[in-house]
Parts: sequence; C-alpha cells; structure tokens
Amino acid sequence: MQSMDDLFYALLQDVYTAEKELLNALPELVKKSTNKTLQQAFADDRDETEEHLERLEKVFEAIGKMPRGKICEAMLAIIAESRHVIDEVDNGAVRDAGLLAAAQAAEHYQIARYGTLRAWAELLGEDEIVELLSDTLEEKKHADELLSWIAEGVNESASQRPQAAE
Amino acid sequence: MQSMDDLFYALLQDVYTAEKELLNALPELVKKSTNKTLQQAFADDRDETEEHLERLEKVFEAIGKMPRGKICEAMLAIIAESRHVIDEVDNGAVRDAGLLAAAQAAEHYQIARYGTLRAWAELLGEDEIVELLSDTLEEKKHADELLSWIAEGVNESASQRPQAAE
Repeated sequence: MQSMDDLFYALLQDVYTAEKELLNALPELVKKSTNKTLQQAFADDRDETEEHLERLEKVFEAIGKMPRGKICEAMLAIIAESRHVIDEVDNGAVRDAGLLAAAQAAEHYQIARYGTLRAWAELLGEDEIVELLSDTLEEKKHADELLSWIAEGVNESASQRPQAAE
Repeated sequence: MQSMDDLFYALLQDVYTAEKELLNALPELVKKSTNKTLQQAFADDRDETEEHLERLEKVFEAIGKMPRGKICEAMLAIIAESRHVIDEVDNGAVRDAGLLAAAQAAEHYQIARYGTLRAWAELLGEDEIVELLSDTLEEKKHADELLSWIAEGVNESASQRPQAAE
C-alpha cells in the first residue's frame, strides 16, 4: 500500500465485507427483537444494506476492480455482541435495548468508514464515487438517528422495574 | 443479563477495556505518524484517554463495582488496522492518512458506546454518572472533528502524485 488509491481499495474491501456481514446478521435481529418499531427498523436496514452493497459494487467497477473483501473483524465483533445479547437476555425490552446498542455501534463504525472513503474519493477527483458514497453515508446517519429515537421508548420500558405485589 | 443495570455494567466493561487498549496503542501512533499536528493530536489523545479511564473508574465506584473489563474485540480490530498501515505503508503522508482513518473509526466506535451508556444512565437516574459520561462523550466528538480537520491537510499531501521529471 503506497498510494491513496491503495488505501482507498483496502478500505473499500473492509466496508464491503462489513456490509455483507451485516446483511447476514440482520434477519436474526428482526426475529429476536420484540418492539415492533425496532423490528421494522431492522427489516428496513436489511433492505438498505442490499442497496449499499450494490452501490459499493458500482464503486469497485468505477476503479476497475472486482468486488471482494476480507473479513471485517470490527464488524464481526459488534455482531458477536448482538448474538451474546440474544443468548443471554430473556426479558424482551432489555434484550431490545442491548440489540439497539450493538446496532448503533455498527452504524457509527460505518459512518466513520464511509466518511473516510468519501473524503478520499473527493481528493482523487472521483465525482461519481463521491455521489454513491454520500448517498449511503446520509442513509447511515439517518438510520442512527432513527435508532436513537426508537431507543428512547425501548429503554423507558426496559428500565421499569417490576412492581412489588401489594 | 436480565436488567438494564446488567447491560450497563457489561457495556461499561467493554468501554473500559477499549480505552485501555487505546492507551496502549497511542504511543506507537505518535511515533509512527509524520505530520506534526497529527502527532500532537495523538499525544493529546493519549493524555485525554488517561482522564477518560479515571472517569470510568469513578463510574464503576458509583455503581459499587470493581473497575475491570474483558477484551474489546472491536477496538482490537481497529488497532490491528493501524498496525497493518504502519507495517505496510512507507510513504509518510499516505501512512498518516491511513492512521487517521483508523483513529476516526476508534473515535466513532467510542462515540456510539458512550452515547448508549449516557442514555442508559439517564434512565437509571444516575446524575453523577451522566455528567462523567457526558464530559467524555463531548471530548470524543471534539477529537473526531479535530481529526477530520487534520485529515484535510494530510490527505491533500498524500494524494499528490510524484511529478514526472522534465
């Protein structure tokens, strides 16, 4: 890796795999969450992730490379956290709160990566690529805001301690 | 993990270890980066991380637990990326750009985690903890903005292709 093109390609591969790992994980999040709005958000996220992968494939095409990636360990670690919550937490609202936390870590990881990729594409003068990355970056930021909004209601339910019998 | 207190404690441990891993990694980033402003930012980050660890220790104390953590795989993956850049990239400006990218991923990961911890502390009615977490969260956001600003200059230098001899 000796040029910005090399760095760009390496990070593009990381983000491509992160999206694929997320695509594989989201159906379980839909199934194991209990709040209906959260389930819908995870289902919509899954559809958006397919679109984000298609955009990344266009970016690979624009730089004349085959779309492929290596394992993205950071995203795998975040997904492992969500699996741990599913395995360990029985209470529905508390589990939702834990899944939301992992999902927001995933969004933020990707917001950082897409932000960097877009900045590098701007410098490399790749306008078509900048536009593709900008569209996804805005959707990730919007998804994170939506999750924060859903979290307010979910956390409220999850923090209500059982009342003692009278 | 059956209550919000359990979730809070588990995430607190994750963030505590993430900060410790970061503290260990930052001296190498200071040493191996070449841009003076970036070196200073990494050195300042190291000092701030010590303060963030102290605040987390106060949070552990406030909930009556010993400060300890488990491995934070997500942060380790991000640090591994920075080591890979150090090993692979000879060109100083390109290496700086790669290190900046990894540092921004680390900041964003932590922004997500501190944001969640603060939201949970608010619900649990822990005002002292909310304040400690808010202070760190604001510093992380500020550090990310500073890195974005430094990245503009670094990326500019890194993307200048060598001129052909006349």
